[in-house]
Amino acid sequence: MNRSELIAQIKSKQSFLCVGLDTDINKIPEFLLDSEDPIFEFNRQIIDATHDLCVAYKPNTAFYESRGAAGWESLAKTWEYLPNDCFSIADAKRGDIGNTSEMYAKAFFNEKSGGMSFDSITVAPYMGSDSVKPFLGFKDKWVILLALTSNNGSKDFQFLSNDDGYLFEAVIERSCEWGNHENMMYVVGATRGEAFVSIRKHAPNHFLLVPGVGAQGGSLQDVCKYGMNSDCGLLVNSSRSIIYASSGKDFAEKARVEALKIQQEMAVELNKIGF
Amino acid sequence: MNRSELIAQIKSKQSFLCVGLDTDINKIPEFLLDSEDPIFEFNRQIIDATHDLCVAYKPNTAFYESRGAAGWESLAKTWEYLPNDCFSIADAKRGDIGNTSEMYAKAFFNEKSGGMSFDSITVAPYMGSDSVKPFLGFKDKWVILLALTSNNGSKDFQFLSNDDGYLFEAVIERSCEWGNHENMMYVVGATRGEAFVSIRKHAPNHFLLVPGVGAQGGSLQDVCKYGMNSDCGLLVNSSRSIIYASSGKDFAEKARVEALKIQQEMAVELNKIGF
Repeated sequence: MNRSELIAQIKSKQSFLCVGLDTDINKIPEFLLDSEDPIFEFNRQIIDATHDLCVAYKPNTAFYESRGAAGWESLAKTWEYLPNDCFSIADAKRGDIGNTSEMYAKAFFNEKSGGMSFDSITVAPYMGSDSVKPFLGFKDKWVILLALTSNNGSKDFQFLSNDDGYLFEAVIERSCEWGNHENMMYVVGATRGEAFVSIRKHAPNHFLLVPGVGAQGGSLQDVCKYGMNSDCGLLVNSSRSIIYASSGKDFAEKARVEALKIQQEMAVELNKIGF
Repeated sequence: MNRSELIAQIKSKQSFLCVGLDTDINKIPEFLLDSEDPIFEFNRQIIDATHDLCVAYKPNTAFYESRGAAGWESLAKTWEYLPNDCFSIADAKRGDIGNTSEMYAKAFFNEKSGGMSFDSITVAPYMGSDSVKPFLGFKDKWVILLALTSNNGSKDFQFLSNDDGYLFEAVIERSCEWGNHENMMYVVGATRGEAFVSIRKHAPNHFLLVPGVGAQGGSLQDVCKYGMNSDCGLLVNSSRSIIYASSGKDFAEKARVEALKIQQEMAVELNKIGF
């Protein structure tokens, strides 16, 4: 999915919600454990219940890998089930030397090779340009680079600074030379509203993938106030507060209720930029 | 495998060689493509031919993921086949927020869950303490944290500096508070011999996993001169120059010849520290 198609979806659905499919076998409703593939079955019902309220889905690969090859199959089936009008994100946080990152790109972008073709993948920046560039050569595919994450550990290195600014600012500045706002986004945690101001200086046009609203305590209104641009420019992720809204038979229904609440708040924000 | 067992293996085999299993379906000998699982069959023969000459094996997960669930199965079979006297490294370069890193730990350290139980995993430091700590709670398991990598892109961020030094030095300094030399190692590229001096100031007792000797141009003698400590303290990795030494029927035999050359050079270096 390219940039203008993504923006069209945001306008049409009045939403910039991304639903995080962090599907944990120990947290899904017990009655699903009898299905052939409980992880996929959970995802399928969540997708059916929410796809008109969100513009993106983001399975985090860790939850699938933790179940070995079977989990990897659940991930491929989930990818295959995702509707075409939703942007798909493999939240994999990969990154390696050039020839190895090419292999990761094959895994997530090349259906013939790895059985999946996500629209985008999250990438860790520590290894620099050649760890990122192999993902940028695919038409209408995206790198979503970690810039400022929502966790406590983000303080350890991302805020190290010198006269040129913080490390997360250097990541954005330098990586803007490798790609552009048509093939790169940045991960920016919602728990740091004030940081959006500086990030928007370096990357005014890029989309930002924003985790940390909901369970982690970030405010949607702050994120929009400081981070939204005239194309919206935001994908706000919510995982646990939607997919685990209920642990009963009504889990999908309750997930829809939560997603709808967020979508309605998002419509208000989109209205402010004339969407 | 714990630290003293690893050191005992190094002494006994007169080697600190790690063989990188970067097994690419497009590079293995053609005659193997008829086997049921060509990737595993290649690895099996490489392991049979080299296990008495090396102390560690390091499959890089990218090469397996690029083949989807089938590749993940080849990885699990490879792990299962590794001899007990070899240290196993999942070169996965993972890292995510705490509850998600726990899932990655399950994938690679918990056989019941993910079907594998490697001795160690490589981890990317960008997300900080809570992305690393979940891997440290397993008995006799190790985190191998990226510090200074061997690729060109390492210049982009790892050498950013302030009054306290370079970013890669901050990574080592800070992470020494999360673990110790019994459960952490660092990745330090062989292409930067001079950097070992500074790294040994911060981490005198830690083992270092050193890629970049061979195909990438690093010198074994320089690595030993600047990086070896009284317990050896080094695992030097070689991937392509060993496993792709021949593309014919004699690939395993030729891999052994290459591994033997390196082992013999290593024995000379080990002799200098009385091993």
